[in-house]
Amino acid sequence: MERYLTRIEPADEAAMRAATERQLALTKPAGSLGVLEELSIRVAGMTGVCPPAVPSAAVVSVFAADHGVHAQGVSPWPQEVTAGMLANFTAGGAAVNAFAANNRVDVRVVDVGVAADVSGLDIVHAKVRPGTRDMSQGPALTGDEVMAAIQVGFDLADQLVRDGYGCLLTGDMGIANTTASAALIATFTGTTADDVTGRGTGIDDRTLAHKTEVVRSALMLHDVPATDPVGVLAAYGGLEHAALAGYILGAAANRVPVMLDGVIAGAAALVAQAIHPAAIDYCVAGHRSAEAGHAVALKALALQPLVDLDLRLGEGTGAVLAYPILSCAVRALAEMATFESAGIDDQAEAGQGPAEGEQA
Amino acid sequence: MERYLTRIEPADEAAMRAATERQLALTKPAGSLGVLEELSIRVAGMTGVCPPAVPSAAVVSVFAADHGVHAQGVSPWPQEVTAGMLANFTAGGAAVNAFAANNRVDVRVVDVGVAADVSGLDIVHAKVRPGTRDMSQGPALTGDEVMAAIQVGFDLADQLVRDGYGCLLTGDMGIANTTASAALIATFTGTTADDVTGRGTGIDDRTLAHKTEVVRSALMLHDVPATDPVGVLAAYGGLEHAALAGYILGAAANRVPVMLDGVIAGAAALVAQAIHPAAIDYCVAGHRSAEAGHAVALKALALQPLVDLDLRLGEGTGAVLAYPILSCAVRALAEMATFESAGIDDQAEAGQGPAEGEQA
Repeated sequence: MERYLTRIEPADEAAMRAATERQLALTKPAGSLGVLEELSIRVAGMTGVCPPAVPSAAVVSVFAADHGVHAQGVSPWPQEVTAGMLANFTAGGAAVNAFAANNRVDVRVVDVGVAADVSGLDIVHAKVRPGTRDMSQGPALTGDEVMAAIQVGFDLADQLVRDGYGCLLTGDMGIANTTASAALIATFTGTTADDVTGRGTGIDDRTLAHKTEVVRSALMLHDVPATDPVGVLAAYGGLEHAALAGYILGAAANRVPVMLDGVIAGAAALVAQAIHPAAIDYCVAGHRSAEAGHAVALKALALQPLVDLDLRLGEGTGAVLAYPILSCAVRALAEMATFESAGIDDQAEAGQGPAEGEQA
Repeated sequence: MERYLTRIEPADEAAMRAATERQLALTKPAGSLGVLEELSIRVAGMTGVCPPAVPSAAVVSVFAADHGVHAQGVSPWPQEVTAGMLANFTAGGAAVNAFAANNRVDVRVVDVGVAADVSGLDIVHAKVRPGTRDMSQGPALTGDEVMAAIQVGFDLADQLVRDGYGCLLTGDMGIANTTASAALIATFTGTTADDVTGRGTGIDDRTLAHKTEVVRSALMLHDVPATDPVGVLAAYGGLEHAALAGYILGAAANRVPVMLDGVIAGAAALVAQAIHPAAIDYCVAGHRSAEAGHAVALKALALQPLVDLDLRLGEGTGAVLAYPILSCAVRALAEMATFESAGIDDQAEAGQGPAEGEQA
């Protein structure tokens, strides 16, 4: 674990101060770009440069894995759908493909723990084991398996930054992964199974009550403290959550922004935060998912989502959808004229604005 | 006016039904793309085709004009900033340029009523008159001037669609144009000056109170009913609002979506709705501006904004920022695989979903 921690530093405050100042000089009323101004300042802090470069390329990494707790009937979808969707990703037929093509984001699919044999697919093969064990019966993973999955994500982030990607986006695929997410979020935020268990991709009231009970029982069975993030991942999984935590830590180590998708990414970001608090300085919340636990996770992470349109699909769709907002924010900071360079007299403050009151 | 009305038809219900059905067959849980599913269905209704074509090109038209009511001290910015920003748009230095470059949206700047002489700029020259008259002293425009400005917008929409643009975005530039917007929105929504007058690009409490009083007095002075949209525009202006109303009607006549920016576009959409109610079938609300009147306008238009990030800049920035969300929504509907084509067994409904309850 130490090798991740030593490479991660907090956001660069000097770059953030320079960006804050630059925002005031650009040809627009101060503050008129709202959340995008704060976002651009955060990206300056991540990259340590003001103005930060507009990311030349972005990539969404879809970490796929299965979950032993699927045996408890927490999802209406058969586990085989995970592998089926991986084939769909490689054929370009999924929602994330459509969004990514539109927003010029590349897609990498990573098998970090799919139950089925997907060795024939043209994806990144990094299977740690074929699905987790059932968290309702015992630990989902061993500590070594957790560390191996974290390493997969961290190494991929390193590789992608070497490949020239300036923004990493999170994606995920795994039937039943909102169940593991609920257990992780409850643990790291000190909330209950009722607060964080949701309908996933769509379950009825009876299945939701059952799923919530499965999460509640698992939390009681394992009772791992939030101060032991590897132990928490070992208790509940999943392999994609561990890999995503490593990916987030890897983005932070490389000083590039990481755009989080929905509830699975939120759970993984809580893990990353528990491993190194400064990792969150590099996280941008792409959207707020309709899944109950996601709002709880975002609140704990103190991240404001860019898009809030009731998406609950996963795959990275929310992150890819929000990516142009990040690049617009950076572009405005980097490319807009200043009042001085545009030859426009910035007389607003000498007029009827607050400054006049001070002069009176 | 008749020539606009005869070309406008409501959204195509058969295409919307087909799109609703197609959404259910795509490789994702039903409803999991949230607002984007409804949006894609609306676009199918606009274009009359399912699936609708992904817009091959998009353009933001920035209608620029000045306002006689500026003389009342409703804005801290001098009127010359309107012309200065036009030069900035043509040089590519404004926020809308940065966003448009990022999101592959072309920018057209239209002088429909700038007070200054901007004939030397490489923009669309369609000046109806150099700024409106002061609405606080009398009518801002004559009926003929209103009709001429509506025609500018309508004709530009026609031309842009002929040029191959599949989505038209609204933009605006004009110091003091939130004052005219407030009067328009109050008239068409039956609200008061207090409800709809905001801080524009940033004014202090004293100037806000003064601006609100100017709007209230103007509403009492003119007292034009909402059933006379041309009369309402003549009373308050502005020339860009009239042109935008024509542009929205023109988009509707050509069956292409028009993405609205902020409060100025919202006011213009209320005018367009008063001229032809079906025009709103073609409107998508890009974002919710921080300006008070915008939320009032959106509620009256029954449009849900795609982005809500406290922008209050105008220029079309909110529309350009939201445009990729529309194109992602359309792309998903047009390009995603179906469960059948992807060979994935859609067993969810036969599992623990609501369908099982029906079988039991």
